[in-house]
Amino acid sequence: MLFYHFGYGPHGPSRRGKRLRPRLLMIVAQALGASIEEALDAAAALEMLHNYSLVHDDIEDRDELRHGRRTLWSVYGVAQAINAGDALCAVSFLTLACAVRHHPADRVLAMVDALHAAHRIMCDGQSLDIAFETAAQVDLDTYERMIACKTAALFEAACALGAYCGGADAAAIAAYRSLGRAFGMAFQIRDDVLGIWADQDATGKIAGNDIARRKWTFPVVWALAQPQSRPHDVVREAYAGGAPLQPGEVARVVAALDQLGAREAAGRAIAEHVGVLEAHSGAQVREFLLGSLDLVPRIP
Amino acid sequence: MLFYHFGYGPHGPSRRGKRLRPRLLMIVAQALGASIEEALDAAAALEMLHNYSLVHDDIEDRDELRHGRRTLWSVYGVAQAINAGDALCAVSFLTLACAVRHHPADRVLAMVDALHAAHRIMCDGQSLDIAFETAAQVDLDTYERMIACKTAALFEAACALGAYCGGADAAAIAAYRSLGRAFGMAFQIRDDVLGIWADQDATGKIAGNDIARRKWTFPVVWALAQPQSRPHDVVREAYAGGAPLQPGEVARVVAALDQLGAREAAGRAIAEHVGVLEAHSGAQVREFLLGSLDLVPRIP
Repeated sequence: MLFYHFGYGPHGPSRRGKRLRPRLLMIVAQALGASIEEALDAAAALEMLHNYSLVHDDIEDRDELRHGRRTLWSVYGVAQAINAGDALCAVSFLTLACAVRHHPADRVLAMVDALHAAHRIMCDGQSLDIAFETAAQVDLDTYERMIACKTAALFEAACALGAYCGGADAAAIAAYRSLGRAFGMAFQIRDDVLGIWADQDATGKIAGNDIARRKWTFPVVWALAQPQSRPHDVVREAYAGGAPLQPGEVARVVAALDQLGAREAAGRAIAEHVGVLEAHSGAQVREFLLGSLDLVPRIP
Repeated sequence: MLFYHFGYGPHGPSRRGKRLRPRLLMIVAQALGASIEEALDAAAALEMLHNYSLVHDDIEDRDELRHGRRTLWSVYGVAQAINAGDALCAVSFLTLACAVRHHPADRVLAMVDALHAAHRIMCDGQSLDIAFETAAQVDLDTYERMIACKTAALFEAACALGAYCGGADAAAIAAYRSLGRAFGMAFQIRDDVLGIWADQDATGKIAGNDIARRKWTFPVVWALAQPQSRPHDVVREAYAGGAPLQPGEVARVVAALDQLGAREAAGRAIAEHVGVLEAHSGAQVREFLLGSLDLVPRIP
């Protein structure tokens, strides 16, 4: 089942995702002088933990497709998929423990603890996100807390684990954490923007898809926090509940968001976090992070 | 949600299970000279990992009741319950890592690794058990592999973690592992027997319940491995599939199992594992294990 999820063996070849988190971990480790081998166990563990969360998220969100392939639960059933995800979580940490061949035990234990702390925080974020599905309203603070937990915590862990692999001290690890968090926030808000205004051919995302499903994303949450107006009413009424929105309704909501300046507001929020990345003095890590925000092509 | 699961706070008081695994861990640790404090983090982590597996098992088995209370998923929905289970898994390991205040880092890392290994093996067992639900037949070897993974692995981990807490060497840890495994096997087969022949008032288990649900348990798997006969046909035909069995059909299957001697066969299998427990030289641990097999009262 896990081979199926990863698109390996008889189940590949297929689009396998960008491997952003382990690449980030390894680039941080290398920037601090670690070899690839010294970072590999942690990088593999991180990618596995991320994929375990995807397997469970797909069940929780009832998503039947990921990267154009059927999700694990939609092929093997919910029971086997929950359990396969659990097994992947265990394998992730068994892999991380292998880092003891390159690092002292106390450092590996700190890494295990950091990854479980991220794991715990991700669950907080996912719990909020599930609750959003039936929420009548979501405020900006709660939305930012949700993405900080659900998305940014694992990028923060990627940077922290990379820094541990490079033998960094506590202050340097904390600095790398801030960097990972800023990247994660920018990455998620950018993802939200693409879910509304994406160029489908370039990104594989369907423009307006998040609106049709009434997903609470940055532009919508921001728009509904603005003073009452006609376009504000359009968004509010569309998000009041009911069946998925039809294409005509989606187009009206997107137009209202444009009128309100929600796209520019998202751009400003991204720019704020990108500022943290631009201020980082290490060229290798900085270029990787800024470049990764373009892995999904620029919004036209 | 986790408070609800454990029956704490506004959700209690309620029957909370026997806490068998953490008690076993602490008794092993104490037998080796450790204090309660030195074993407490590991014991709490173990009980949390066990409960995380219960939360997910209840979803996977669609069980709506546990200890007479509604299961987490049946109150909060599948999505939140999967995620709450995941969070509990993370909290379990964050708790285990706290053991570093009493033990050297390399020992704690070995404990974390041992618990993740058990976690991984439990998933193997659960995957087999889910597959059993739709299996036309289950052989005795596969059945024993299933319970060795799903049930015995965590008792094995209880003994191993207790031994680590007591500062045991590799040979002693391995010996305690064997003890935990033998106990787990005996415990599960005994549980299987109670699922068919239990005194409901004394155990809370409904006699014949596992038969009505066509569960593959030791007595049934053993019976179907015997040569063809009239009672053998009764069991085989009842397990050929279809709707849950009616009380009259259940009674006929139980009578057939009695005629075949399935209850005695289960007794012999239990006795074999109990022999390992009786041979253990430490009186405290031995008495606890033998006594625990009677926590659920003796079959009348």
